[in-house]
Amino acid sequence: MTDDAVCPVLIGGRWRPARNPRRFFRAVDPSTGMETAGLYPVSDASDVEEALAAGSAAAPGMAEAGPEAPADFLDAYADGIAARAGEIVAAAHRETGLPEAPRLRDVELPRTIDQLHQAAHAARDRSWCRATIDTKAGLRSRYEPLGGPVAVFGPNNFPLAYNSVAGTDFVSAIAAGNPVIAKAHPCHPAVTRILAETAFACLERSRLPRAAVQLLYHLPPDVGLALVADRRLGASAFTGSRPGGLRLKEAADKAGRPIYLEMSSVNPVFLLPGALRERGEKIAAEMFGSCTAGAGQFCTKPGLIVLVEDEAGRRFFDLIQAAFAGAPAQVLLGESVLSGIRAALEAMTAAGADIVAGGRAPSGSGFRFENTLLRASGDAFLRCPRPLQQEAFGPVSLAVLVRDGGQMAAVAAALDGNLTTAIFSHSGADDESLYGELAPILLTRCGRFLNDNVPTGVLVSPAMVHGGPYPAAGHPGFTAVGFPAAMVRFAALRSYDRVRAHRLPPELRDENPTGTMWRWIDGEMTRGDAAGAAQKSMR
Amino acid sequence: MTDDAVCPVLIGGRWRPARNPRRFFRAVDPSTGMETAGLYPVSDASDVEEALAAGSAAAPGMAEAGPEAPADFLDAYADGIAARAGEIVAAAHRETGLPEAPRLRDVELPRTIDQLHQAAHAARDRSWCRATIDTKAGLRSRYEPLGGPVAVFGPNNFPLAYNSVAGTDFVSAIAAGNPVIAKAHPCHPAVTRILAETAFACLERSRLPRAAVQLLYHLPPDVGLALVADRRLGASAFTGSRPGGLRLKEAADKAGRPIYLEMSSVNPVFLLPGALRERGEKIAAEMFGSCTAGAGQFCTKPGLIVLVEDEAGRRFFDLIQAAFAGAPAQVLLGESVLSGIRAALEAMTAAGADIVAGGRAPSGSGFRFENTLLRASGDAFLRCPRPLQQEAFGPVSLAVLVRDGGQMAAVAAALDGNLTTAIFSHSGADDESLYGELAPILLTRCGRFLNDNVPTGVLVSPAMVHGGPYPAAGHPGFTAVGFPAAMVRFAALRSYDRVRAHRLPPELRDENPTGTMWRWIDGEMTRGDAAGAAQKSMR
Repeated sequence: MTDDAVCPVLIGGRWRPARNPRRFFRAVDPSTGMETAGLYPVSDASDVEEALAAGSAAAPGMAEAGPEAPADFLDAYADGIAARAGEIVAAAHRETGLPEAPRLRDVELPRTIDQLHQAAHAARDRSWCRATIDTKAGLRSRYEPLGGPVAVFGPNNFPLAYNSVAGTDFVSAIAAGNPVIAKAHPCHPAVTRILAETAFACLERSRLPRAAVQLLYHLPPDVGLALVADRRLGASAFTGSRPGGLRLKEAADKAGRPIYLEMSSVNPVFLLPGALRERGEKIAAEMFGSCTAGAGQFCTKPGLIVLVEDEAGRRFFDLIQAAFAGAPAQVLLGESVLSGIRAALEAMTAAGADIVAGGRAPSGSGFRFENTLLRASGDAFLRCPRPLQQEAFGPVSLAVLVRDGGQMAAVAAALDGNLTTAIFSHSGADDESLYGELAPILLTRCGRFLNDNVPTGVLVSPAMVHGGPYPAAGHPGFTAVGFPAAMVRFAALRSYDRVRAHRLPPELRDENPTGTMWRWIDGEMTRGDAAGAAQKSMR
Repeated sequence: MTDDAVCPVLIGGRWRPARNPRRFFRAVDPSTGMETAGLYPVSDASDVEEALAAGSAAAPGMAEAGPEAPADFLDAYADGIAARAGEIVAAAHRETGLPEAPRLRDVELPRTIDQLHQAAHAARDRSWCRATIDTKAGLRSRYEPLGGPVAVFGPNNFPLAYNSVAGTDFVSAIAAGNPVIAKAHPCHPAVTRILAETAFACLERSRLPRAAVQLLYHLPPDVGLALVADRRLGASAFTGSRPGGLRLKEAADKAGRPIYLEMSSVNPVFLLPGALRERGEKIAAEMFGSCTAGAGQFCTKPGLIVLVEDEAGRRFFDLIQAAFAGAPAQVLLGESVLSGIRAALEAMTAAGADIVAGGRAPSGSGFRFENTLLRASGDAFLRCPRPLQQEAFGPVSLAVLVRDGGQMAAVAAALDGNLTTAIFSHSGADDESLYGELAPILLTRCGRFLNDNVPTGVLVSPAMVHGGPYPAAGHPGFTAVGFPAAMVRFAALRSYDRVRAHRLPPELRDENPTGTMWRWIDGEMTRGDAAGAAQKSMR
């Protein structure tokens, strides 16, 4: 493909030109601000219509293929990504400005590969479907595929681990047995194309329908809204900005289509006085690192740091202010991040915060912004809690210096839903009383609650929760990261009522299909067979 | 209390008069159309405000009380209901017209009591919270209470088993550790008052906060919408009509508050040719019973019966038509059911269905309607699938006589989401091919899929799913009946990240708090302790 050829979309099991592209776009290298090679179409409704038709047609076959087929595909795809690692990392770097090493090559790529294998393992294990059998009543239930494709809208900040065609939403939907319609983030179409090519090559060698993975690069807003509202769609998943997420949520909600959203979070960190007295310097270094790593473009970046303005608090503040002021400006993911920071800083200073470090975009080419620290008093925060807890996506954090523990609790109570909240406390018992006051409040404001640690670094673990109460996410009962929990989002709960034995899905038959899958049978968790199977074998 | 005294509401741990009632209402005995004793307030925003404040204040204490306290309360409440059974059944009969026996006394009351005990058992067992521990990463997650009260809007058709202050949503929310704000169905305030009195007497003797159960009798629409959208609310649950449910859903969705809805369903039943040849007479009797039991006022009533118009089909149709025509008109729950039936019949006949039995309200006092059967051809159904699959709540069903199996599949494909779908087929292999064509379609249209059985009769079992795809319910991943699954609706998923051991909730500590609770520890399902505990005991 020459630089000027328009890249094809992947629809209905083949790469083909977009039908009636509304327009075309190129990705931009954010380190230079220059357009990169490759012309990509903005699809119109006709591409989406065909993707929905093909995805719905693929859904029953994919559900019937059973869990081994998607698991094998995910494993093969992981190997395929590993084989093209250099090319993938280079493209991701070019389109996002994120460092090739260690970030992309040594952290995000291995995580992406590992997550594919973890999801494959969970699919094979089958315990995730929570098969429940009541032999006396003849009732058997499980989570099973949704019956329609899942639309995945990827974010700009993780070109691999959250990529619409390789990231956690993608693998969760596939592992749960659903076809995916991926919508690339338009900041990084080339890396998404390479991943989709890799996926499709594996798909062609798999037992899954060829429309199990489809890719569109970009959609006009009206077409995106129609997609999430389409009744053929099983569900949608979106990771990105709050305004974009809320628009999709409204359209999906109105049509009664499930949508899972991760929208924004300031990840408040509460530094208790004893902790700062004990190890303020260490915490300052950790906090600065967490606030500015990846140019602060993590969903879990601590955007709000709350501390008491006592002697140790002032010393901590001076340390972190100096760190912010002394570090060089970093490349941002794109122009929209830059304009978002400017708007957030304007709103936050208008609401009573002062910029005490950074605050400017350095001159020169590309999209960069200084590491920026704001400061507000507890009184100021409590006067305007909404504007002062907005996400400033990028290397921007607000330190709130409160009068005392009581005001700290008042700040906690004024918080909205977040992905994470954290408390740093004295390693002994010095802060225990204030901890006891804060923890019950902060727990209800988050999906993941930390002690003595920064929130960045989302481990792919069965016990991870990457989600939280609205408006951090759309529903407090789900996680986007960690298997098998993340798969349940893309499943319907269904009961089979006196369905004849030979017509039951394998997971609900008397005999345990793997011998290792956990099921809840007649009130007992077991890896054994249901009573009927035992009786049958006794006959 | 004299007949004319206004009944108090239960707010903030005491019975007190409504603050600024918008107006007052009386329940109506539907068998006579006459008002019954007892005057009830329609609360305004000030009562709701106080209930929300008290409910939010009660939430942390309730969460900290642990699972034994709500379990003990639910068990005691079940005993309390049993002790007042006669009074409760009499009030329910007077306000709903449902027969005292067997329906209320021998079926619904025992089910209500049993469901309280089942939820108590699930709360005590604790396995429902799906504790997941990753000892290496220091990550531990579980489902836990929402952090705010749950608003429960009960329906008119189950004055006990779905009552806002005793039914499945109520017990699920309490068992999961949340306070409840109950909104009575205005058709049966007296039975709801007796149940709330019983609950509150048990609450006062329990270790739960006194605002764990609150009761409002009626709300103007604007106040109800504000309630489900309030940010202090943990979640809402609604069972009732589609228009009412959709209004609440819109308000809750807009505010990002979780809401669980059960809105309407026609529960399509497909009678395959072999089944009707083999046992048409038996199926006709079962189907007539299921369509007209409780005057057809079940969420799972078969409102749509699809069969092939062959010889056996015609014979079945004649049988069921005669059964509908020959049975006496039954008392309905109230005037709104009567007017709903009239509107549905008008829309369905306008869309091409013919009334072939019943169709009129008999003269005389009270609210009654004849058992009513409609008939439409498969062609007619496929021309207007939407109006012909609307719920006619009451003793009304539509038989669709299709040309052949192919047209049967087309009818199935035109169906919306339902609570249940069912296939009756030949006991041998005669219908296997058509079954294979229909089942994959009908599975994606329901939460519970039946073979050879009518959908009415929702057993309280861990393997039950009473829910389904929109618009039958608001989300396909949940059930309103069956423990522990129904409790998960009212829980937040939360991860504890390197939280110090003594600060963890008991379910996430190294030692298994009950010795029997199932947990997922380091990739293994186990009733044992986590590694840390073993190491500790070895030291």
